[in-house]
Amino acid sequence: MTGILTGPEMLALIERLYPICRSITGDGVRRTLEIVGEHLPLTVSEVPTGTPVLDWNVPREWNIRDAYVKDASGRRVVDFRASNLHVLGYSVPVSGVFTLDELRPHLHTLPDQPDLVPYRTSYYAETWGFCLSRRTLDAMDEGPYEVLIDSTLEDGHLTYAEHVVPGQVEDEVLISCHVCHPSLANDNLAGVAVAVALAGRLADPYYTYRFLFAPGTIGAITWLARNDTGRIRHGLTLACAGDPGTLTYKRSRRGDAAIDRAVTHVLKGRPHTVLDFSPYGYDERQFCSPGFDLPVGSLTRTPYAGYPEYHTSADNPGFVSPEALADTLETLWQVTRVLEGDRSYVNLSPYGEPQLGRRGLYGSLGGRSDTKQAQMAMLWVLNLSDGEHTLLDIADRSGMPFAVVAEAADALTGAGLLKERA
Amino acid sequence: MTGILTGPEMLALIERLYPICRSITGDGVRRTLEIVGEHLPLTVSEVPTGTPVLDWNVPREWNIRDAYVKDASGRRVVDFRASNLHVLGYSVPVSGVFTLDELRPHLHTLPDQPDLVPYRTSYYAETWGFCLSRRTLDAMDEGPYEVLIDSTLEDGHLTYAEHVVPGQVEDEVLISCHVCHPSLANDNLAGVAVAVALAGRLADPYYTYRFLFAPGTIGAITWLARNDTGRIRHGLTLACAGDPGTLTYKRSRRGDAAIDRAVTHVLKGRPHTVLDFSPYGYDERQFCSPGFDLPVGSLTRTPYAGYPEYHTSADNPGFVSPEALADTLETLWQVTRVLEGDRSYVNLSPYGEPQLGRRGLYGSLGGRSDTKQAQMAMLWVLNLSDGEHTLLDIADRSGMPFAVVAEAADALTGAGLLKERA
Amino acid sequence: MTGILTGPEMLALIERLYPICRSITGDGVRRTLEIVGEHLPLTVSEVPTGTPVLDWNVPREWNIRDAYVKDASGRRVVDFRASNLHVLGYSVPVSGVFTLDELRPHLHTLPDQPDLVPYRTSYYAETWGFCLSRRTLDAMDEGPYEVLIDSTLEDGHLTYAEHVVPGQVEDEVLISCHVCHPSLANDNLAGVAVAVALAGRLADPYYTYRFLFAPGTIGAITWLARNDTGRIRHGLTLACAGDPGTLTYKRSRRGDAAIDRAVTHVLKGRPHTVLDFSPYGYDERQFCSPGFDLPVGSLTRTPYAGYPEYHTSADNPGFVSPEALADTLETLWQVTRVLEGDRSYVNLSPYGEPQLGRRGLYGSLGGRSDTKQAQMAMLWVLNLSDGEHTLLDIADRSGMPFAVVAEAADALTGAGLLKERA
Repeated sequence: MTGILTGPEMLALIERLYPICRSITGDGVRRTLEIVGEHLPLTVSEVPTGTPVLDWNVPREWNIRDAYVKDASGRRVVDFRASNLHVLGYSVPVSGVFTLDELRPHLHTLPDQPDLVPYRTSYYAETWGFCLSRRTLDAMDEGPYEVLIDSTLEDGHLTYAEHVVPGQVEDEVLISCHVCHPSLANDNLAGVAVAVALAGRLADPYYTYRFLFAPGTIGAITWLARNDTGRIRHGLTLACAGDPGTLTYKRSRRGDAAIDRAVTHVLKGRPHTVLDFSPYGYDERQFCSPGFDLPVGSLTRTPYAGYPEYHTSADNPGFVSPEALADTLETLWQVTRVLEGDRSYVNLSPYGEPQLGRRGLYGSLGGRSDTKQAQMAMLWVLNLSDGEHTLLDIADRSGMPFAVVAEAADALTGAGLLKERA
Repeated sequence: MTGILTGPEMLALIERLYPICRSITGDGVRRTLEIVGEHLPLTVSEVPTGTPVLDWNVPREWNIRDAYVKDASGRRVVDFRASNLHVLGYSVPVSGVFTLDELRPHLHTLPDQPDLVPYRTSYYAETWGFCLSRRTLDAMDEGPYEVLIDSTLEDGHLTYAEHVVPGQVEDEVLISCHVCHPSLANDNLAGVAVAVALAGRLADPYYTYRFLFAPGTIGAITWLARNDTGRIRHGLTLACAGDPGTLTYKRSRRGDAAIDRAVTHVLKGRPHTVLDFSPYGYDERQFCSPGFDLPVGSLTRTPYAGYPEYHTSADNPGFVSPEALADTLETLWQVTRVLEGDRSYVNLSPYGEPQLGRRGLYGSLGGRSDTKQAQMAMLWVLNLSDGEHTLLDIADRSGMPFAVVAEAADALTGAGLLKERA
Repeated sequence: MTGILTGPEMLALIERLYPICRSITGDGVRRTLEIVGEHLPLTVSEVPTGTPVLDWNVPREWNIRDAYVKDASGRRVVDFRASNLHVLGYSVPVSGVFTLDELRPHLHTLPDQPDLVPYRTSYYAETWGFCLSRRTLDAMDEGPYEVLIDSTLEDGHLTYAEHVVPGQVEDEVLISCHVCHPSLANDNLAGVAVAVALAGRLADPYYTYRFLFAPGTIGAITWLARNDTGRIRHGLTLACAGDPGTLTYKRSRRGDAAIDRAVTHVLKGRPHTVLDFSPYGYDERQFCSPGFDLPVGSLTRTPYAGYPEYHTSADNPGFVSPEALADTLETLWQVTRVLEGDRSYVNLSPYGEPQLGRRGLYGSLGGRSDTKQAQMAMLWVLNLSDGEHTLLDIADRSGMPFAVVAEAADALTGAGLLKERA
């Protein structure tokens, strides 16, 4: 159990989780959640195979012990023990002898990135396969090869976990990350690590924060099928949180939800990208399906499929950095500061400006043109606190940081000039 | 009677219509409609001179047999038989001998385009005149000249014609072109030819299509005075449809009518111009007068007065090309595809994404980042089919071609995941 | 008493007002209003010290006769008689002998502009001080110095004045300028001079025009506390009206009030700047406080604090020019033309275009593409006079000058085609 994770501690967590062979079901997910559970108390749910969840059914559970392609000399040309990426995710068991030509339909490579092993899965069509570098494939002779995939695909469970930080209100902020990818660091162990760190940093928040660690697509669908989403006020899917790129925010389907405005406010003034919603990417696809239409955006650094290491063996712990992880965390923290602090106030002295100087809120020497930011913030808060504007509205309109505006509101409230709107 | 006209066939039609001396009334319009009637069954209306039509009255009918300015040697210096542009449109009859100085107030030239003959009319002020090139005028001596305009301006009729392609519904798409210009090819025989070709291409459409061939201004006013416009759902005036310039769309007065959105969608991704409505140009002026305010835009290539050949003898059949005519037709056809196909659907499985793979609608191999356009279109249609968005909305928001989105909707409807909104 | 002031006459008025030592109260304001009163009949209000006005109280009245810092030789190193800027505004009386070190906390300079004397005040914290150039300060030895400020700060009155030009309606246009700055020419004697000139130019206007000459902040607050603002339809604060910069308009808090649209229309097509509202600057701060939220914008040339001469001894009559003053006046005059003339009309012949030619409103020769601006304006007015658009809307949408559109409306009204909307 830790408090707040530093950048290096987040990276250490990623390195520890990296070797585990995760999939949408199975012991890899369970082991991952056990390790996360060392940092945060988790409520783990196990949903039986076959359970109807929205338009889907919980699939069979997949587990794997070993897999290889051995050449005539007995050498493992492709070896699951070297990297779990070498097996097509959800492969059915296979054991036999194949020539290279017979094997080819089951071999996946990246011709344009000949040194890298691709990440591939086949969740919903029963097949088997191996992923390998193009160079390895090019060096293979005609065989025959001894082939083994020692996997099981049997009735079992789908596993997900939740961590809740109780707030002053039951309204929730949902932070969701997928935990179904095997040895891929940025996508999405980095998201998991930043979520763990954020959870550790929240103390007595206003909102209740729910962290969801679930396999992609089917995990989110299962969670949505089993829970009331009515309390979710704001949400983010978190992924690709540790690469060297700048931050990217993808808006919720609503486009102008408070979470959209909070994240874009925090990102202002630093290099970043804002994308409109599209129905592809991470589990915002599910949260933003039209039946739910939840105010859930997506925060990443370089987004999905936007970097050459994406879904390859190059997305390893060396691809993520403590600095990038800490930067994502700090941004996310600032977003929570905006969500937590955004309120609507009413100016109790709305006719003309109140005399701030008399109340010690204003510099006494007139004629100077370098008015201070704090004083400008007070004037903005007074001018726009008509019940129609929140502090975030005021921060956006004035171009001032939210924190400065919120401090001004505090000072004015303390002076009896402002009160929170009922 | 033909089916669909090709580009060269449209040009052949233009060449056949070109020599006829058209005006807002008279036998030139009748002869033009007879030739159009060889391609399309037409309902021809004859409205008597003096009939009140909105704020106007149907004018007298103008017909002309010959006109010239002869020099002392008997040579026709200006000769109606060489080009009907040489006579000021609607000239009253004249016969007499004039010196050049006496003639000058009746002679119209283009000083900046000295080789070209201008097109001029005087419909509502009784006068007579000749149009000639500046070079011809400069070569004329002081005269005297024998002058004849063998015209009649008498009670008669205004003539217009309609061709209707019945649709599944009585709601109408109006395509209107003016047929009052004499020997001018792009303005507007090209519009007439493209309209004829479009009419031939429509087979069992959803909407009823009404093609109106009428003289400019007074023809549209006469038609509006005599017909109920309540069935017009979408409309276009069509002109300057064959010049080498790029396409130009001028929005309806409403600015965001379905026709405005359909045309701008189709034009996206190719060089084009979109103009806001202005109360000048072609008969959209009448259709978009505030009392009617019909959703009628204007499609041209280079717009009104935007090319040096405009309203001169250089707007001859050599100025229009089969390729440009075919391109205008194809664009117009695509516009009708959008109008015909734009529907609002409801996602029947709106909670989370439905499992497309199970229904054979989705590639089975996961992990790849090159999602196909058809799959993306299905995700967009599912996500936005909440009863608030039509397929055109979805095409615009996704940046995908309408046809791809419409096909996705068909596939999803076939799979029982979508139904058309009642 | 004058009629319209020319640019040189405005400058002459500025030069005459320049030497007077104004403050937020006292005889300097009274003397200023006496001189303005030679041009315009004024109603002067005197509000006693201590009177509660909104959140404030009318302060004591400040008057000053002399002030200096004398060196050992008796020379006035700092001399109020040379410039009234040398005394910190609202200084309490002081008389004594001080070393330079003792004096330093009371001396204000501009280190970055070493030749200039700053303008400083201390209205609401009792203190005293001198303003001087940095060069003067650097040349001072350690003293001691004989120091005198012969001022009084006693119960008295706050003084402001109003000039009203009665209109056809009681709805008001408010033009407000501050009269509290001592020897500063652009800020705001230029504003005062332009206001005086505008008042002289208005004759039998539609709106009633109220010109307010009041000390900044407390003057506006006092006026707001004592008057009903319900009649104010449009308003402007006027300041910095004579510097060589281009015009700047700062929108009202509402952002899209008629005054905002009128000024931006008039400024279109010439170099200018439009700023969104912010709760700092001149007395628009008070008029646009949320309780009042009046449609009051701010017209300046270079805005507040935007020029190096701002609030220094360099803002002298040499900084303003007759040309700039006349340009500001003419712009303001054009704004009043828009406010006065903006009306909503109804097209009485809205079905199709009415036949303008029959009514002598349209050129008779067709076919030409150089339609005249006046004809285009008539078509625009007819097309948009549906009760939803005012003449200013039409001018903005058509891109035509307001005056041309208004003339078209007059012509159409004269022809019985248009009537003013009830």
